[in-house]
Amino acid sequence: MNCEVVAVGSELLLGQIVDTNSTWIGEQLALGGIDCHYQTKVGDNFERMQAVLSLALSRSDNVIVCGGLGPTQDDITRDVIAATAGVELERREGLVEQIVQVFGNRGRTMPANNLRQADIPATAEVLPVLPGTAPGFVLEVNGKAVYAVPGVPWEMQQMLSGFVLDDLRRRAGIGAVIKSRTLRTWGDSESGLAEKLHDEIQRLDRTGECTLAFLASGIEGLKVRLTAKAATAEVADGILATEEQIVRRIIGDRIVFGTDDETMESAVLSQLRHRGWTLALAESLTGGLIGARISAVAGASDVFRGGLVSYATDVKFDLLGVSPGPVVSEEAVTAMAYGAAKLFDAHCAIAVTGVAGPDPLENQQPGTVWMATLVQGTVEAHRAVLPFDRERIRQITTISVLNHLRTRLAN
Amino acid sequence: MNCEVVAVGSELLLGQIVDTNSTWIGEQLALGGIDCHYQTKVGDNFERMQAVLSLALSRSDNVIVCGGLGPTQDDITRDVIAATAGVELERREGLVEQIVQVFGNRGRTMPANNLRQADIPATAEVLPVLPGTAPGFVLEVNGKAVYAVPGVPWEMQQMLSGFVLDDLRRRAGIGAVIKSRTLRTWGDSESGLAEKLHDEIQRLDRTGECTLAFLASGIEGLKVRLTAKAATAEVADGILATEEQIVRRIIGDRIVFGTDDETMESAVLSQLRHRGWTLALAESLTGGLIGARISAVAGASDVFRGGLVSYATDVKFDLLGVSPGPVVSEEAVTAMAYGAAKLFDAHCAIAVTGVAGPDPLENQQPGTVWMATLVQGTVEAHRAVLPFDRERIRQITTISVLNHLRTRLAN
Repeated sequence: MNCEVVAVGSELLLGQIVDTNSTWIGEQLALGGIDCHYQTKVGDNFERMQAVLSLALSRSDNVIVCGGLGPTQDDITRDVIAATAGVELERREGLVEQIVQVFGNRGRTMPANNLRQADIPATAEVLPVLPGTAPGFVLEVNGKAVYAVPGVPWEMQQMLSGFVLDDLRRRAGIGAVIKSRTLRTWGDSESGLAEKLHDEIQRLDRTGECTLAFLASGIEGLKVRLTAKAATAEVADGILATEEQIVRRIIGDRIVFGTDDETMESAVLSQLRHRGWTLALAESLTGGLIGARISAVAGASDVFRGGLVSYATDVKFDLLGVSPGPVVSEEAVTAMAYGAAKLFDAHCAIAVTGVAGPDPLENQQPGTVWMATLVQGTVEAHRAVLPFDRERIRQITTISVLNHLRTRLAN
Repeated sequence: MNCEVVAVGSELLLGQIVDTNSTWIGEQLALGGIDCHYQTKVGDNFERMQAVLSLALSRSDNVIVCGGLGPTQDDITRDVIAATAGVELERREGLVEQIVQVFGNRGRTMPANNLRQADIPATAEVLPVLPGTAPGFVLEVNGKAVYAVPGVPWEMQQMLSGFVLDDLRRRAGIGAVIKSRTLRTWGDSESGLAEKLHDEIQRLDRTGECTLAFLASGIEGLKVRLTAKAATAEVADGILATEEQIVRRIIGDRIVFGTDDETMESAVLSQLRHRGWTLALAESLTGGLIGARISAVAGASDVFRGGLVSYATDVKFDLLGVSPGPVVSEEAVTAMAYGAAKLFDAHCAIAVTGVAGPDPLENQQPGTVWMATLVQGTVEAHRAVLPFDRERIRQITTISVLNHLRTRLAN
């Protein structure tokens, strides 16, 4: 059983908007056990949209059409689907009331145009989820399901999660529950993890109880995703829990910084909060990036005291107590960590100094970075030489030093 | 004349990677005067790839196939195009040498697999641009051009910019040069700008000498893109220069912070550098974001002295000289700006304090922000209430306060 995705909108073809909707839908279909062989972008043009939809119906088992359900004249997905199915559009009075109400709830009057959104192909069933003002619907054409959902990402996602994916799985006769869990890692390469997990992947291939995939996420690390299929959610959860322990034992618990949506910064904050400790920063080449990530987490204020961005060299000497001398050095980064903890009266501290480039500094090449962490009065410093461009050097330094602190706190 | 885009890779359908390549190519085609009616994603599967390519050749004038040119067994774009064209693959010895050399330049030995990348359809011409190890090529099938380019974004972009786009325009008989310039603005809405420029857009529609489009870029502001078509680059540049002055006069020079790739932070740094002034920061709810953006610009160090991230309330009192009392207030943000300039011995300063949410602070709602700029000893403070989520509040505060400083420096 498969499902094709058609994304509608001339702005997608003109490169004004990246089509992240199809990407998200593709991921959800894969997680749900539905294949997706084609994804097509087409502009707001009746003939071309109809040709793409007819083709999709000829080569795929089901189709999700995303976009073109708005109130303006160029929103013609309703018309195209009705014509392809050979039925008329028909105004659903129940929907008119619902749309008027959505506007009312937002304190606005409905423009007359929006009535068009209540015109649905005669044989279609309106989706039971209406997050915005654009109703979605589903109808059958030659025994194949065609789903229409809006192009606004959060509206589309609610309709998919709330109805379409389950409906597709019901049609496919997939009674089993599919659940997944992602282990987020930092500190090993994809080939390194693949080598360590080689035997386990082969074992899973034989037993079929669970699958294991790697997703490279750049500076967010490498994700190891476990997916289990079972008769009930409880059984699937049990398989995932067991497999998570196996994988953690093989790759080393130390490199797993979180699960699912947990970020490195939220992992560090949780550990500090758990111990009742506070954090201070001294940033040079990262210029505030570490603080920006830490403070992006809601509730950071009970742990994060503050940071000093010591971009100019004399600021390091005057405000952090670094001794005059080279500032890309173990001595300097160690003094910065002590200085930050003292200045902000914090239990723990992070300090970084280095050469972001493009020019060398103190005869050291761009990418040369010193990172330090202070825990319970003791500083540990590390040196790295990162063969990347300025922005990647700064980003990788940020997540690396947060990871240093995390592993020290875990011990 | 049109050109279809086919993006190859199962990882695109599985949602593991967002297909930004097609988006970029679509934008470049539009700028070059070539229509793009369809963009399709297809997995690494011979039959399906061949079906998609044949369809593209039947409905479009030209096709760009992106991806599947790597060295591994699932990279089969070469094979699919050769089969569709009815020709054999043939090893190009000149390419073998070039690929070996690329590896040599990186101090690595070429794996034997990479030889596959030198196998090109017999009738194809190798593209003259080889940024990585995957050669691109072009061949004709029934008088239509099929271009194959790698999926690695920077390699693909260099081949498009260095050959494919010009070749397409030559085939289309587009002798004219198309050039564009983007004015980057902050401080007016899309509908506001559209209203102010309404008469000018109508005038341009009549004369046809230039087109004008709006591109919303979120926290990077609103872009106004001017595009001119002319016999030579010089004439096109002249048209753009004249139109830029007209547009600036209409929308107000004050809201234009840069052109093309110039960012708000680079505009602020340029103005400060021009006057020989330095900058200090005092950040609370942004937590380091302003410093992170400023320091992302190469060469920031001759202007940017440093910043204090005063996340905890007592840090504002102790290190910035804020008087005890409410910290989301005009008094506090003003004291923070003076405090930062003094602490870092800088000519200018930026300070922000506010409620990022999700919880209220000092009985003020999330989104309540005080921003201040200090120039030549004088502080100006502004209050804003931003109806967004935590991250957008922080991002919009960052660009807004940088824009305040920019407009003060411009006067």
